[in-house]
Amino acid sequence: MTKQKKFILQESEIPTQWYNILADLPNKPLPPLHPGTKEPIGWEALAQIFPTECAKQELNTTDQWIDIPEEVLDKYKFYRSTPLVRAYELEKAIDTPAHIYFKNESTNPLGSHKINSALAQCYYCKQEGTTNVTTETGAGQWGAALAYAAKTFGLEAAVYQVKISMQQKPYRSSIMRTFGAAVTGSPSMSTRAGKDLLTIDPTHSGSLGTAISEALELASTTPHCKYVLGSVLNHVSLHQTIIGLEAEKQMAQAGEYPDTVIACFGGGSNFGGIAFPFLRHRILDGRNTEFIAAEPESCPKLTRGKFQYDFGDEAGYTPLLPMFTLGHQFKPANIHAGGLRYHGAGMIVSQLLKDGLMRGVDIPQIETFQAGMLFAQTEGIIPAPESCHAIAATIREAKKCKEEGRGKVILFNLSGHGLIDMSAYDQFINGDLQNYSISDQEITDNVNQLEQII
Amino acid sequence: MTKQKKFILQESEIPTQWYNILADLPNKPLPPLHPGTKEPIGWEALAQIFPTECAKQELNTTDQWIDIPEEVLDKYKFYRSTPLVRAYELEKAIDTPAHIYFKNESTNPLGSHKINSALAQCYYCKQEGTTNVTTETGAGQWGAALAYAAKTFGLEAAVYQVKISMQQKPYRSSIMRTFGAAVTGSPSMSTRAGKDLLTIDPTHSGSLGTAISEALELASTTPHCKYVLGSVLNHVSLHQTIIGLEAEKQMAQAGEYPDTVIACFGGGSNFGGIAFPFLRHRILDGRNTEFIAAEPESCPKLTRGKFQYDFGDEAGYTPLLPMFTLGHQFKPANIHAGGLRYHGAGMIVSQLLKDGLMRGVDIPQIETFQAGMLFAQTEGIIPAPESCHAIAATIREAKKCKEEGRGKVILFNLSGHGLIDMSAYDQFINGDLQNYSISDQEITDNVNQLEQII
Repeated sequence: MTKQKKFILQESEIPTQWYNILADLPNKPLPPLHPGTKEPIGWEALAQIFPTECAKQELNTTDQWIDIPEEVLDKYKFYRSTPLVRAYELEKAIDTPAHIYFKNESTNPLGSHKINSALAQCYYCKQEGTTNVTTETGAGQWGAALAYAAKTFGLEAAVYQVKISMQQKPYRSSIMRTFGAAVTGSPSMSTRAGKDLLTIDPTHSGSLGTAISEALELASTTPHCKYVLGSVLNHVSLHQTIIGLEAEKQMAQAGEYPDTVIACFGGGSNFGGIAFPFLRHRILDGRNTEFIAAEPESCPKLTRGKFQYDFGDEAGYTPLLPMFTLGHQFKPANIHAGGLRYHGAGMIVSQLLKDGLMRGVDIPQIETFQAGMLFAQTEGIIPAPESCHAIAATIREAKKCKEEGRGKVILFNLSGHGLIDMSAYDQFINGDLQNYSISDQEITDNVNQLEQII
Repeated sequence: MTKQKKFILQESEIPTQWYNILADLPNKPLPPLHPGTKEPIGWEALAQIFPTECAKQELNTTDQWIDIPEEVLDKYKFYRSTPLVRAYELEKAIDTPAHIYFKNESTNPLGSHKINSALAQCYYCKQEGTTNVTTETGAGQWGAALAYAAKTFGLEAAVYQVKISMQQKPYRSSIMRTFGAAVTGSPSMSTRAGKDLLTIDPTHSGSLGTAISEALELASTTPHCKYVLGSVLNHVSLHQTIIGLEAEKQMAQAGEYPDTVIACFGGGSNFGGIAFPFLRHRILDGRNTEFIAAEPESCPKLTRGKFQYDFGDEAGYTPLLPMFTLGHQFKPANIHAGGLRYHGAGMIVSQLLKDGLMRGVDIPQIETFQAGMLFAQTEGIIPAPESCHAIAATIREAKKCKEEGRGKVILFNLSGHGLIDMSAYDQFINGDLQNYSISDQEITDNVNQLEQII
């Protein structure tokens, strides 16, 4: 037998606590502000929108570890642990001295890492007597996960899906419906926020920002209904740390420790999930690991955005969050990585970036699909367009190793598979995909509008 | 922590040999016959079409165990072992005293069990100096697996996909193209067999039988090109026994042994894969396990076909095989389970059925999707339409247990996921699916034609 390819934990080895990086951050993020009063907001106010337990987790800066409820752990066992895989074939194809590992979150039947937080949030909803949940989704990975999680905990789910993604990936709405969710394209005529957007621009193709506005409005006007979010917020990244905590144990099985940790970046949930547990060793033990968040060239909030209080949604319903942002009314190009079409970065990641504990890279769409094709043909897995950003960043780093003639251990998160995104691969193969760069002026114009708000 | 949900083998525990049931069968199958001379055919003749090693395996009735080549084992490690899962939620939903386990072949990135044989066949091709492979595919699970296996062993692949399946599931052709394969809808104008079929019926929507004819013709007219088959033949089931051999170890981990083993049935590859290793204990040790093959009501060769020599393809290019058949010119209804739209059963299964060592059940399309929806909403996995047949048969058995007030251990093979088949689920949810029953007369008419051939 030859070298070990996959590293897997038995059910009894799956971590039973999430890691709360807020407790360890050298500089805590600024507080979220009430959108009306502009005063710091407490968990009680957040709990009017979100599940109470999630609202408390959102602002918990003291507890380093938070117990995973037993019912959630039970559901995690449906698909966890996910494998840590050594990408020998990819290494060979790019002839790199680097060791490349990936955490394969695509093995779970919901298609991506999103289920890790969906189960937690729906569990808390059920515990707290909530009967209905509503949310936004882009490419539909979060919506699919939420639909199943709601069904398994006996909740009704209503999902607003970004209209352009719904058109690009029709199967994802079918998946949500198969799990019993109601799905509406956003912007829609079913909310005031949606109507306002469509009045200004009837051809509006939607964004995560528009879909969040609509879901929030539905939650706030429906009894026993809570809003659940798939990324950006602290408690979502908290639930996702199961990824990095498993990976830490699995890297130990492999006898290695990552020099570089890479994930794609939309709002921050899969990046935080894999990075925060390793960042804890950088913050607390001084380990010299580098953290890279890979974002689309067309939505570059980390590399070209401004650190500023901004809304999480297009209509301006959410609390104001301190974030690197392109402005909440920024309209991302219609790239296939729907999950990365978001204007702002989560609070924790924004603070980490400010403090130089991580960095962003932005990658053109065509390069991401080149990376995805190479990964598919070597490792046998067709990656989600979002995950292709992490692969492209990994390939860049691995090629650098080759140029510099030095070895390095790279760990990236394969956040999901691309089986529902085959029309994007078709376009790439046919040469019909394009890059979308944006001008400094466009970013400045969007960000400048913010200064009048706050 | 509560009850264990998944049973997983470490890489070092993955079986290193396949099980060859031909060595243990109480009655060996009749020999395949040359289509021209009607004389028994040897491996040398088969090796003109198939990889030589596969041709030898096809007729090997002496070796009980066959070593898995190390390079194939290395590729198996990309996705094996697959989990054995206890379906607690499904049991709860149907309130059964039965213990239901499923072997989850859907976790591999190619979407189904088919990769287990694709890797083996492409490996042998490469070893033997073949540069091109060609094959047929229905729903595309086999074609996708073959496309990746060919790519990973450096072969060119040409796939004939059943035209109706290509239209129903366009993403599967995209997957094949992503792995670098050339894909043609069958019947096509690119072969004589295809032209003949289209001349008689220009609207012919294809079947596995037509696609096999076209692939065979391409192989026999192309230098350094071999034909590889995804089911039916003995060597394909041989490679698939990795499923049952793993399951045997995993059932032991769970401390149980199956009373009933169930799989869906097209040509027999996933059924043989899970059943043969357990059948060995029935044949050799007298264990009283029952084996059920679940086929579509619209393609009922096991329950209503005739045992008879027949061709494996529509045009009559293949050797004549002793099989339960509906006649090689039987045109299966356009059900979504494309992988089950085949007129005949493999030689080993046909012999087992004749000898009363297994039985078939046939299931209407709507019942299969009802089962698939329930499975998705309880276990979180959207099953392939083919696999829905196994689930429906499992539910029937589990409900019987409840009626009879007795426990039982049921193991079924979840051969693949249904993420590329969402249009079928959409139709089911919208109430647009139908059942297709066929008359005795239709079967008799098709089978009677055979008697003039042999």
